[in-house]
This record gives sequence, structure tokens and C-alpha cells, in this order.
Amino acid sequence: MVEIKASAGDYVRFGLARKSIEGVILESHEKDIVLLKLNSGYNIGILRENILDVKVLRKFHDEARKDFSIPSGKGKPKIGLIVTGGTIASKLDARTGAVKPLTRVEEFAKFYPKLFERCDVIIENPFMELSENMNSLHWKKIAKIAEKMLNDYQIEGVIITHGTDTLHYTAAALSFFLRNLNKPVALTFSQRSIDRASSDAELNLDCAVSFVLSDCAEVAIIGHASMNDDFCYALRGTKARKMHTSRRDAFKSINSEPIAKINGDKVEFLRQRRPRNKEKAELDTDFSDKVALVKFYPGQKPDILDYYVKERYKGIVIEMTGFGHVSEDWIPALKKAIKSGMVVCASAQTIYGRLSSKIYSTGREIEKTGVIFLEDMLAETAFVKLGWVLGHRNWKGYEKAKEKMMENFADEFNELLTD
Amino acid sequence: MVEIKASAGDYVRFGLARKSIEGVILESHEKDIVLLKLNSGYNIGILRENILDVKVLRKFHDEARKDFSIPSGKGKPKIGLIVTGGTIASKLDARTGAVKPLTRVEEFAKFYPKLFERCDVIIENPFMELSENMNSLHWKKIAKIAEKMLNDYQIEGVIITHGTDTLHYTAAALSFFLRNLNKPVALTFSQRSIDRASSDAELNLDCAVSFVLSDCAEVAIIGHASMNDDFCYALRGTKARKMHTSRRDAFKSINSEPIAKINGDKVEFLRQRRPRNKEKAELDTDFSDKVALVKFYPGQKPDILDYYVKERYKGIVIEMTGFGHVSEDWIPALKKAIKSGMVVCASAQTIYGRLSSKIYSTGREIEKTGVIFLEDMLAETAFVKLGWVLGHRNWKGYEKAKEKMMENFADEFNELLTD
Repeated sequence: MVEIKASAGDYVRFGLARKSIEGVILESHEKDIVLLKLNSGYNIGILRENILDVKVLRKFHDEARKDFSIPSGKGKPKIGLIVTGGTIASKLDARTGAVKPLTRVEEFAKFYPKLFERCDVIIENPFMELSENMNSLHWKKIAKIAEKMLNDYQIEGVIITHGTDTLHYTAAALSFFLRNLNKPVALTFSQRSIDRASSDAELNLDCAVSFVLSDCAEVAIIGHASMNDDFCYALRGTKARKMHTSRRDAFKSINSEPIAKINGDKVEFLRQRRPRNKEKAELDTDFSDKVALVKFYPGQKPDILDYYVKERYKGIVIEMTGFGHVSEDWIPALKKAIKSGMVVCASAQTIYGRLSSKIYSTGREIEKTGVIFLEDMLAETAFVKLGWVLGHRNWKGYEKAKEKMMENFADEFNELLTD
Repeated sequence: MVEIKASAGDYVRFGLARKSIEGVILESHEKDIVLLKLNSGYNIGILRENILDVKVLRKFHDEARKDFSIPSGKGKPKIGLIVTGGTIASKLDARTGAVKPLTRVEEFAKFYPKLFERCDVIIENPFMELSENMNSLHWKKIAKIAEKMLNDYQIEGVIITHGTDTLHYTAAALSFFLRNLNKPVALTFSQRSIDRASSDAELNLDCAVSFVLSDCAEVAIIGHASMNDDFCYALRGTKARKMHTSRRDAFKSINSEPIAKINGDKVEFLRQRRPRNKEKAELDTDFSDKVALVKFYPGQKPDILDYYVKERYKGIVIEMTGFGHVSEDWIPALKKAIKSGMVVCASAQTIYGRLSSKIYSTGREIEKTGVIFLEDMLAETAFVKLGWVLGHRNWKGYEKAKEKMMENFADEFNELLTD
């Protein structure tokens, strides 16, 4: 058996019986198996005895330890950047093959030199968090920093880098929290970390810069439009959803066209938008965490409603089937929950399309209980909006909550959608 | 003001100031407004005072009251038909504008003459139910009748007509309940009732017949491939989902190609399939209703797990974010639930793509608790499968449940999917 004079993190070429194979050696706990991360991003295990030849093409150096200072940007357009964590602020741990968050914002800057070439960047880094761990407290922190940047700094707009898992929830939250918006707010991300050949980080961030320099005072998610590494879409913060675990074009516009197509520094608007303006952005982060999101499924007992009533939840969004249905045996429980003061909303489990309470008898019966049918609003957006509406103490009572849920604050309803 | 000599159900033309408009008059409770169902299917309200002229083009007759006998079909291929309710077995109530279920199977036959021209049909009608009301008892009834038809009758295969709301859950259930399948089983539906010009019922049913006459012993959903009324797809029962509230191509193949494209009587297979065979189909309807489906959302308290443990649920499928994540504070609750004996599975909230516990630290931590990562399996399919697996008393213990959940019974895993 050939001796392997290489260690975890090294980029190597192994000669096998019929072909050779290149990749980064990962730490392995099986002494007979060598783990290799291929350039495609996939990990494979190779039996040690099948390796006939080893060539180290590049030794491993932990570059993160080197110092880096953020370059100054005199004369360039000024933007705000809020770094919050996620894959776009992570790198591959060459020893384990897993993705590890960057811990210092200087590291982040080092990975994205182009951003600093195009702009003079004011960075804020409130926390480094994977987005599955984020909640309304994180949304409030981000909104507060964004509002300060938008009103007090001489900047063109704000970019927020964020993990992908719950990015669409944060985008919806910022769409409601930042009222009277005056400049662009771009949320961007990457599905694959920057040190991987297939990373989407650089294009997404570059397109986010273009969006922030454009004439659109809205909250948008900026990301790959397709699996190709060519251009991005700007998706409305209230009308987008992560629709794939791994693809670079994971975020899709739902029940709405994207706001814009972004190709390099060219921003082509695809639909009406709110233009830049001289107003003062307003922060409105009132939010109640006593709100739940429940997906209905066949045979589900309505007891789950009693549970949330007992736990003193103020509101619930139910992802109903079809045009907005649950099984008949839910009707008494819905009535009871609403009578207790809980605000009950319906959104579509199908994701695409618009609810209607008028077409089937079930819909009419459910509507009679007081359930609020949220038209074409995404369930995720509805959940965030309900927390926001019920967080406002001055919007009191069921009728007021209904009125606010049906008001179109941030294009969460697409009134043009007909099919 | 002109007198309107027409009543609910009549097809009329109204002359307005600038144009005329045709449709069916609906019952209206506002005396100043006339409700009209347009040919497009939309309802509009017209102020009585704006109607300048009225022409009754067709008086309303309730045709459902006429008698109809199911034609005999000597010499034609024989098929089984299980009518269960839903829009495909409904008609427009001309007086209210709502869709109303047919109550007698003879009515169903009358609406679909082409089916009876092509086939000799053995009809069973275990119940007439809107699919939002269906649960595992309905699935069992359908499976039992299908099994009897497949084994005891000289038929080519079975068509099941069904409401759309939960059709994909039923399709998954039948995929697991009918083991060792010998002939085609086609579930079909309509999004718009047959008496509407835009109905998709006839094409769907015609393509279902073609599928049942083809060489594929699988459970499939047959429906419009696009918004055009031209051809259908056959979607694998475990790999399909209703993805739009109203579109005729509402059902989409998820993480898999459709099994076949069906154009009239031409069935073109798009991927590998189980061929027709001489085996005996087996009925395996063991099912536990003590199984839940929960969608994780930001800020959600892990207390919901304690609730299901307390309610003695045997299993739960959690729709996690990204590659299979929940927030860190769920880890202790996951451990506790699994320790109590509850089987906890993860599926993807993104719908598309495959889970992976290896890429991020959160995934590795969650996997360590014992959570079963269900790869590319749809959450709806996972919920049905978990109820089926835990319904088998002979499959005892966590390890056995995991083994069965990861076994590919009905192509619920797509092993070819790489992106």
C-alpha cells in the first residue's frame, strides 16, 4: 500500500486503478478510508488500498489567520452593509468538509474585494448567526440598524447579508418594520460558500450593489435567477420563498413578477416600484411572538387550536388546503378559538394561487366562523405580518386586526394576479 | 329602471351604457345588485340601475333531475372506476354560483359519456366526500375496493376520481397501501366542474383511461400538464403535490420527472416504471393516526414537541428549513421526544431538493439526536408513510421504524436526483 504523505486540507490528486481523481482531503475517522471533497462539492470515501499514487497539488494554509484591513473608498458611492452570518459569511473548514461561520467581519471583507472596489462600505455586524436560529429579536436589530443607516448616513442604500434558511421571513419582517422607505434595501445570500468554485456569493453580492444604486425604495431579495451564473432577480420581500434546498436559484417569486432583472450593473425593472425619495424612513418594529403557523393535514385533530388558545396565543395562520379549506370537524373549534379572541387567518398550502371562500360550501362555512382569508399572501409572510399587526397595542379588537391584515402595506397582496 | 324578467339560473345578456355582457344570473341578497357568473367563471355584481336592457338567451332547467342509465359496454376494455366526490363529481349550482357535489353516481356517468364510449365501466361509489374531509379511513376504503377490483375482476386497471385538496395525500397512501401492484391505478380530478366551459374534467378523465390501458403497474395522478387543454402528465403517487389553488395544471411532479406524458390515447413513458404483471396485489392498510406534521418557523417554541409527546403521538414529521434545520434551542426537546419513544423525521420546507445533515453544524447536531432525515421525500408523503410504518405492530422500535422509513417502497425517494 502506497504511503499518503498528505494531510487534511491538502489539495491532492490520487491515482486509482483506472483513473485519477482530485480534491481536498478531509478528516476521516475510519483509518481505512480517505475522505475527499471533490471540486463539485461532493464528498467521497476511497478505500486506502485502492490509492496507487498520491500527488499533493497544494498544501493547506489557514488563510483566515492572516491580517486584512478594510480598504478605504474615497469618491466611490457609499453604501451600508449589515453582515448577519449565514453561508455568505462562512467558509469551508478544509479539515472537516463542513461549512463554518466566519467570526470576524474583516474576514468577510477579505472574501469580497469587488464590493470594496465598487463602493465605500460602512459595515455593521450586529451578530453572526445561522438563519435557522433567527427570530423576531434579530429582525428588530437588523431593522434598527438599517433605519439608522437610511436616515442618518449619506448612503445610496443598504445591503444585508443573511443565511438562506429563513431569509424570506426576515425579508417580510423588514418589509413591514421599515415604513415609508426612502432607499433600496437588498437582502442577499449564498447557497454555497465563497471558497467553493461553484459559489454564488460573488454574483449575488455584485447584483445587490447594483440594486442598491438603482431607483427603487423597496426591500428585496437579490439572488441567482437560474442555475447559470449569469444574472440575478430582485424579488419583493413579501413575495418570495426558498423553494430548493441546494440550488443557487433557490429563491422564487411567488404570485408576482420579480421587481427587476439585474445583469452586472444594469438593472431592468419588470414591474411598478416605489422610487427613491427624500422622506424619512420610519421604524415600526412592534411584534407579538404569541403567533403560530400551522399546516393542516388530513385527519388532523382540531385540538391543536385549543392548545394554542390555552397557551394564550393571540393569533394563528393556518395553511389550509385548496382555496382555503380544513375538514368540517374543525368548524366548531375555529368558532371557539375566534370567540376566545384569537385572530385566525387562512393562507394557501399550495403556495401558488389565491384563496377564495366563495367557490365551495366548505369555504363559506369557514368564512362564517370569522377566519380571515388572506388572498394570495404567502403563509410565511402572513405569519410575520400577523405578529406585526398583533404587536400593535393601538390596533385593538378582531375587526381592527382583520382590517390591518387585509391592508396592503408592502405589496404582500398582488392585486393584479388573476389566475 | 328596466324590469328584469329573468331569474336565478337563466343565461342572459344585459345591455349596459357602453357595452353588453352575458352570463348566468345568480341568487343575490342585495336587492340593488344583480350577480352574474361570466363565461370566464368569474362573478360580477352589476347595479340594477345600470342595466338598460335584458335578453334571456336560455331559461334555467335543472337537468340533474332527468333520468339517465349507465350504458352497457360489450366488447370494450373493462376498467374499474371508484367515484369518491370532489369537483370532478360536482356541478355548478346555477342559483348560487357555488359548486355542489353530485349525490348520485348516475349523474356522474351522465357528465362523462366519452368514458363509457371507450370502456366497459364497473363503478363503485363508497362515499361522496370533498377531499378536505378525507382521512385515513377514507384511504383504507378506497384501497380495499381497488384491491378487490385489481385481483378479482377482469379489468385493465382502476380509475379513482377525487377532490383536489388532499389528492396527493391519498395518492401517497394508496402507493403504500397497495403492495405488489399488478395493474395501473390512476387518480384523477378536476379543478373546475364539468359544466363550466373551462373545465379540465374531460381531458383528465380521458387521459386517465389511456393510462389505465397502458403498461404501468403504479399509482399515479393524472392531470393537465400545462394551462392549455392539450395533454396530461402521469405523476408518481409519492412525488406529486398540489401547487396552485386554481390552475388546471395544479399538480406538479416534485424531485422527479413525471412517469408519462399522455396525449389522447398515446402514452409516452418518460422514466422507468413497474410493468403490468400477473402477481396478486396485496392490501396493507395498517395505519396509525397518532402521527403529526409540523412546519417549523422562526421563533417557534419547541414546546410543541412536548405537546405531541403528552398527547401520546407515536411519530412526527417536521418540515425543517434549508437542508434540515431547526433553531438550536430545539435540540434538547428533540432529544427528549425521541427518548420518550416518539419517532421524529425531517423533511424539506423548501419542497424541492434534498436534505443533508452533513453540510452544516446544525444538521449534524440534529442528526445526533436521532432525527431521521428523509432525503428528498415530500413532507406530505412522509406524513402518510410515517403513519403507515408506525401502524405496523410487527415493525417495533426506533431502529426498525428508521429502517422502514428509509426503505424505498414506492419510489418516494428519487435516488437519481443529484441537484
